Amino acid sequence: SPQAARIDFMAAPGPGFQAHDATAPVPPTGRVHRLDLRVQEVQREVAPGVRQQLWTFNGTAPGPVLRGRVGDTFEITLSNDGSVDHGVDFHAGALAPDGPMRPIEPGERLTYRFTATKAGIWMYHCSTMPMLLHIGNGMYGAVIIDPPGLAPVDREYVLVQSELYLGPPDEPGDLAKMQAERPDAVVFNGHATQYAHHALTARAGDRVRFWVLDAGPSRSSSFHVVGGQFDTVYAEGRWLLRPADPGGAQVLQLHPAGGGFVETVLPEAGHYPFVSHAMVDAERGARGVIEVSAR
Amino acid sequence: SPQAARIDFMAAPGPGFQAHDATAPVPPTGRVHRLDLRVQEVQREVAPGVRQQLWTFNGTAPGPVLRGRVGDTFEITLSNDGSVDHGVDFHAGALAPDGPMRPIEPGERLTYRFTATKAGIWMYHCSTMPMLLHIGNGMYGAVIIDPPGLAPVDREYVLVQSELYLGPPDEPGDLAKMQAERPDAVVFNGHATQYAHHALTARAGDRVRFWVLDAGPSRSSSFHVVGGQFDTVYAEGRWLLRPADPGGAQVLQLHPAGGGFVETVLPEAGHYPFVSHAMVDAERGARGVIEVSAR
Amino acid sequence: SPQAARIDFMAAPGPGFQAHDATAPVPPTGRVHRLDLRVQEVQREVAPGVRQQLWTFNGTAPGPVLRGRVGDTFEITLSNDGSVDHGVDFHAGALAPDGPMRPIEPGERLTYRFTATKAGIWMYHCSTMPMLLHIGNGMYGAVIIDPPGLAPVDREYVLVQSELYLGPPDEPGDLAKMQAERPDAVVFNGHATQYAHHALTARAGDRVRFWVLDAGPSRSSSFHVVGGQFDTVYAEGRWLLRPADPGGAQVLQLHPAGGGFVETVLPEAGHYPFVSHAMVDAERGARGVIEVSAR
Ligand SMILES: [Cu+2]
Ligand SMILES: [Cu+2]
Ligand SMILES: [Cu+2]
Ligand SMILES: [Cu+2]
Ligand SMILES: [Cu+2]
Ligand SMILES: [Cu+2]
Ligand code: NA
Ligand code: NA
Ligand code: NA
Ligand code: NA
Ligand code: NA
Ligand code: NA
Ligand SMILES: [Zn+2]
Ligand SMILES: [Zn+2]
Ligand SMILES: [Zn+2]
Ligand SMILES: [Zn+2]
Ligand SMILES: [Zn+2]
Ligand SMILES: [Zn+2]
Ligand SMILES: [Zn+2]
Ligand SMILES: [Zn+2]
Ligand SMILES: [Zn+2]
Repeated sequence: SPQAARIDFMAAPGPGFQAHDATAPVPPTGRVHRLDLRVQEVQREVAPGVRQQLWTFNGTAPGPVLRGRVGDTFEITLSNDGSVDHGVDFHAGALAPDGPMRPIEPGERLTYRFTATKAGIWMYHCSTMPMLLHIGNGMYGAVIIDPPGLAPVDREYVLVQSELYLGPPDEPGDLAKMQAERPDAVVFNGHATQYAHHALTARAGDRVRFWVLDAGPSRSSSFHVVGGQFDTVYAEGRWLLRPADPGGAQVLQLHPAGGGFVETVLPEAGHYPFVSHAMVDAERGARGVIEVSAR
Repeated sequence: SPQAARIDFMAAPGPGFQAHDATAPVPPTGRVHRLDLRVQEVQREVAPGVRQQLWTFNGTAPGPVLRGRVGDTFEITLSNDGSVDHGVDFHAGALAPDGPMRPIEPGERLTYRFTATKAGIWMYHCSTMPMLLHIGNGMYGAVIIDPPGLAPVDREYVLVQSELYLGPPDEPGDLAKMQAERPDAVVFNGHATQYAHHALTARAGDRVRFWVLDAGPSRSSSFHVVGGQFDTVYAEGRWLLRPADPGGAQVLQLHPAGGGFVETVLPEAGHYPFVSHAMVDAERGARGVIEVSAR
Repeated sequence: SPQAARIDFMAAPGPGFQAHDATAPVPPTGRVHRLDLRVQEVQREVAPGVRQQLWTFNGTAPGPVLRGRVGDTFEITLSNDGSVDHGVDFHAGALAPDGPMRPIEPGERLTYRFTATKAGIWMYHCSTMPMLLHIGNGMYGAVIIDPPGLAPVDREYVLVQSELYLGPPDEPGDLAKMQAERPDAVVFNGHATQYAHHALTARAGDRVRFWVLDAGPSRSSSFHVVGGQFDTVYAEGRWLLRPADPGGAQVLQLHPAGGGFVETVLPEAGHYPFVSHAMVDAERGARGVIEVSAR
């Protein structure tokens, strides 16, 4: 398509573009978390020179990162400010989908209440069919439930991988491309080149934790930090590696809707790219940079 | 293709269609299990309004689920009632392929004897080249070898994910589509919409175990239950999560020929979809529903 | 393309073709390992009747296997004997990419020094953009860092899976095919049919270890030995299965840049194929044979 053909994956985001803040939120102190989640259809740059209409939770794709601890309750008020039906599904809680995940019409609202009984990084997304289209158009986000005793680190980021299937400028994505699994770009936190040009930051010797969620809708991820090694890997609720283990990992392997975190100590100042090591995806946007300053 | 173009992924199976029974068989009490496995070429509905010739073991795709315990011996008599060469390969046992996996001609039979020394859910499939075509045409199934001490649950299902590459009506699948990895549908237990219309069942509070095998031939799976969380995950012979662990899982991540099981307690009455969360596949059939009734 | 259309995946390699030696190197005794790594552009058969220009490390794709122990230091002298810029990235060590991974011009050299602090099988590859093209054209290899206490086995092989995207005869691969993830072949150790015709060998009862690295650039792997079962699985720095565990595995599941090893005891004489069980890839070259002789 004309828009896809003109993506320059080396170019900086356009003037005025604000990179999505990848900093992980601090877990709030209370045990009940209330959030207004508004479905908003917005127009936004997703790659240099490429604008799309996105269907979002609270104006951004991905939507806000929620965070809490095992046992916390989340009370979400979903409002549909969009033009078509939408809904929401939180993987972080267990409940019958019939009521809380039902589609609501424009102008309606519903309350979605769940208790987080299990740790992990959980996807949430629009629950309205076809979900391929609603997720593919921007309706996804992450809920982090800390494993008990999770140690603090120096820097903590959240990266959500997703695919872009471009439609005409300022219009929604192309369902036919989604059905053919023909993405025009694969991105972290919603924009193809934002973190290549607005790098994440750390200092030499910092322990950095990356929470990674593969929102898909359809492609797997193989998350890697160039120049780094993961001494800690936690995936789908399970510790796979801890710092005292003799082994290390080069990739965090995720399928769509899978998530986890990795930790690495970046040893010296410099520029450390991160990618999905599925290189076809790295070349079409699944990359960024961590800029590490001298301590 | 004309058949692919007219699949209605929302439609019910046609009149007279019998949904594949997903209930896991009970492990038999003996230690030697004998089975006649007949290769039969049948014509069958695989999606609403779509019929294919399938190459099957015992008339269905997937073939029968075999089950036993570590140390059990299986003695299989394979008969080729088809029109071309076929054979069989059981991942559940270790042996030199030369004899037991050899192709046999129509009208021939062979005996395949193996002892199951390791637990897991193991694929079996036709061993005749091109296996892409024989598996893609329906020749696959599962052998369950229970891990020692596996606790009983309230419901136990077996779901085998596979791809459909449609040929003309009532003819075999299209090899060129298989070679291009262009499936027309991705299904559980052989039909695109059977479990959306003939739901699996459970009662509120039931612990439900899903044995899942990705038969491919070529695509990975990301098995998810909407509204549920997995507190138990066992994949490729390894416990990844047990109920006492603080973490939980949203997906069971499998590559072709990979298998495992997950458990979830469905907390209340309602309709819980299950999917491969690779949404392109969920939209083309990799979904179903668990109908949970009040206790 | 004409070259792709004429691949005969059943044919033997051409006259004079030397199969890539899959035998794992013995870990050297010293603690500092020095290696000259020369980028060389060569013309070579990659499938029966198909020749490509490959960009290589030391003349072969994959490049040499490096091996050592936790704590060892590697000192690599990279020389660019090619016609375009190249560089190198070793996942086996942690360091700022800025200096050591920089592209160097033809005729230049650099020294890349790293200490291996973590065990595993680690990818190395050209670090010059577009990496999709440089890896897709042959610039990849493996570094094995033994887990402490790794027991000796009877046979030990290294298999690196990669994709081929054919260009015209004796020219480099086709970037457009790489960008569309349309491989013409998927191979182990660089040639589509070498191990089907020049089998790996073992004796009945041997414990065989396969180190497997998925070099991509873009496709996942599902490594399987027909007739065998894995009683030992180590992936991305983590033991998943040991022989005393009651479970076994049929596949080693890897995403691009992921690696590990599996062990199996091949019980009797015969021919045991190995494949990526993503059957579309097995049919286009991701297979070989282990010939097991009587003890
Ligand atoms: Cu790297
Ligand atoms: Cu890399
Ligand atoms: Cu869900
Ligand atoms: Cu979901
Ligand atoms: Cu097999
Ligand atoms: Cu198999
Ligand atoms: Na949920
Ligand atoms: Na990016
Ligand atoms: Na087998
Ligand atoms: Na289905
Ligand atoms: Na590195
Ligand atoms: Na091969
Ligand atoms: Zn929506
Ligand atoms: Zn800088
Ligand atoms: Zn019916
Ligand atoms: Zn067959
Ligand atoms: Zn995977
Ligand atoms: Zn109902
Ligand atoms: Zn030869
Ligand atoms: Zn290069
Ligand atoms: Zn032989």
